[in-house]
Amino acid sequence: MFERELIMIPGPTNLDPRVLRAMCRQPQSHTSPEFASIFKEALDNLKKVFMTKSEVFAVAGSGTLALEMAIANVIEPGDKVLNCVSGYFGNYFVEISRVFGAVPRVLEVEWGKCIRPEKVKEVLMEDNYKAVTVTHVETSTGVANPIKEIGEVVKKHSDAFYIVDTVSSLGGMEVRVDDWGIDICASGSQKCIGAPPGLALVAVSQRILEYLERRRSSIGTWYGSFKNWLPIMRDPTKYYATPAVNMIYALNESLKLILEEGLENRFKRHYVLAEAFRAAIDALGLKLLAEKGAASNTVSAIYYPENIDDNQFRTEMKKHGIIVAAMLGPLKGKGFRVGHMGNISKSDLFSLLTAIELSLKKLGHEIKLGTGVSTAQEKIHTLLR
Amino acid sequence: MFERELIMIPGPTNLDPRVLRAMCRQPQSHTSPEFASIFKEALDNLKKVFMTKSEVFAVAGSGTLALEMAIANVIEPGDKVLNCVSGYFGNYFVEISRVFGAVPRVLEVEWGKCIRPEKVKEVLMEDNYKAVTVTHVETSTGVANPIKEIGEVVKKHSDAFYIVDTVSSLGGMEVRVDDWGIDICASGSQKCIGAPPGLALVAVSQRILEYLERRRSSIGTWYGSFKNWLPIMRDPTKYYATPAVNMIYALNESLKLILEEGLENRFKRHYVLAEAFRAAIDALGLKLLAEKGAASNTVSAIYYPENIDDNQFRTEMKKHGIIVAAMLGPLKGKGFRVGHMGNISKSDLFSLLTAIELSLKKLGHEIKLGTGVSTAQEKIHTLLR
Repeated sequence: MFERELIMIPGPTNLDPRVLRAMCRQPQSHTSPEFASIFKEALDNLKKVFMTKSEVFAVAGSGTLALEMAIANVIEPGDKVLNCVSGYFGNYFVEISRVFGAVPRVLEVEWGKCIRPEKVKEVLMEDNYKAVTVTHVETSTGVANPIKEIGEVVKKHSDAFYIVDTVSSLGGMEVRVDDWGIDICASGSQKCIGAPPGLALVAVSQRILEYLERRRSSIGTWYGSFKNWLPIMRDPTKYYATPAVNMIYALNESLKLILEEGLENRFKRHYVLAEAFRAAIDALGLKLLAEKGAASNTVSAIYYPENIDDNQFRTEMKKHGIIVAAMLGPLKGKGFRVGHMGNISKSDLFSLLTAIELSLKKLGHEIKLGTGVSTAQEKIHTLLR
Repeated sequence: MFERELIMIPGPTNLDPRVLRAMCRQPQSHTSPEFASIFKEALDNLKKVFMTKSEVFAVAGSGTLALEMAIANVIEPGDKVLNCVSGYFGNYFVEISRVFGAVPRVLEVEWGKCIRPEKVKEVLMEDNYKAVTVTHVETSTGVANPIKEIGEVVKKHSDAFYIVDTVSSLGGMEVRVDDWGIDICASGSQKCIGAPPGLALVAVSQRILEYLERRRSSIGTWYGSFKNWLPIMRDPTKYYATPAVNMIYALNESLKLILEEGLENRFKRHYVLAEAFRAAIDALGLKLLAEKGAASNTVSAIYYPENIDDNQFRTEMKKHGIIVAAMLGPLKGKGFRVGHMGNISKSDLFSLLTAIELSLKKLGHEIKLGTGVSTAQEKIHTLLR
């Protein structure tokens, strides 16, 4: 099997060779000054990426653990929580909230649509909520919810903690934890960050740390307790549970790459490639799942034209060396999902587009080869002029 | 900084270059048939290492997550649990049990001593317990508790679930999950298994899976729920949370190495090296923390002779390229800990011993150079004759 396949799924994403090389070394002692300085550097750079001056955590686990940490530290049994759900992963917050004894109020929108701040305001006026959860980029639909505007509503109309899932956006789209009043920002290593899967990344506000001191019941998790991990995140020569040493090497290198590119440049690259991709999809007569104006710059979900079989299409794509993802949940089989995030280049995008065109044509869909490609070229030419 | 330092701490341990190379590749899609077959192979081999025909789990997280998964899935609020504590990590089970609402009954022995099966029997006769927790190798003291014999007592005198922490023993000392009636066996990737830190490894009996179907309250964790992960462990093309793809590559290779060596050979290697090390320590006039007959074959904790300073000693060791660990908790400063586990060879052991002798001498401790080394040589010569 060739290893040169291009994974264009919504995570894990392709690793820069520098990240691979950083990971591929003998682990040091997890409490040695040498490893502590690497870990600290990674955490300091992670703060820059989260745009926070408060605390960040990098803990062995998946992005789902990051979501669980957010809820488990904040929710006490009986707490009311407002879960804004716009797809498969928004619902994770509902499930996790229930596990920790919350009474969830679910504000749900149809898959492909985004959460409206006005609607959040309406619901907030009805009751007092301990926390509000929102998914920034809903990986199942490719929708980006307006987390800045929702945050303004949450701050203005409630005392609720604002919990945001940025698993599929952090490092690819603007996320300003401090400026936007995000109390807990949960993310993962393997998407726009461009490290392998295996680290839960979380930013936590001072407001949360103060709350943890006055919380009535004990925190519902030990492994995921912010209080247990905080001393280690402040001084990694301290011990609590063994950090994923090699994964931290990888994270440190991937964060360096991000800051070398520059966050603004990185957001712009994601924007330009996403715009070009969407223009191409449109030119090919295909339809995005995301409603107009709500499409994310990191993930796209695209409906198949009639008579295209999911497995056949993805098998064709694979023959071209390109891996795309299936739709999730109720939409499985009805379309495919693409991750255009992390270290993706223009060349990768055109590899993707040519493969989509060839695959559709092979499967009998009427298409003029090059239509999507040239449209994307035009878009890039215009946007980068 | 040189990367050729030899980490002789109780995990993380040195990685075989094959493990490094396996880890260092572009991640595949976590639900692709190609990755699923690697993941499945790793899980099948993990079953062999756990010596179970039941279910195993490999989840992104540290060994502490494995302990949390054990408790969170089994304990319901108000349940009585018997925690056998012989050191720092035995106490983790107490803390975690409390988080999940258990009423812990702590059977504690002095650090350096091991849990006696007779004593466990006595306590079991006093009350009904939902679960009994024991640490196999207590990483803080180097004591190996008799988990086989304790298991017999638990089965004979109670209906309790038997939960064992084998973080510092699995793959280095005999652990027979099925034969010894272990209901949940929690471990980690970075010690005797010889993979990097970052994976929680857990074996779970059918009895537990049946119990999960009739449990009254909901499971106290979502990320660590056996029910949520089970479909993925049976068929890794299914999705729940993103597995740590590159860590699974590393685990798969490290498990292959273990099975190529053969479990019995591996246990014997650990036994021989540990015996040689202990004989050398004795010949040098140093004292083990572990009481006679209870020393583990994977970790040793050694008291300093008088007038040896912890930092100075470990700094001297480091100058020889050997990293050893500090003692934990109340014993910090009073001695050092050595991990002689995983892929450790005779050559590594002699590097360690020569460095210990030279460091002690340098710091003014009266010692005849070569005493420990030659004693270890004799021991190996005898044991391998």
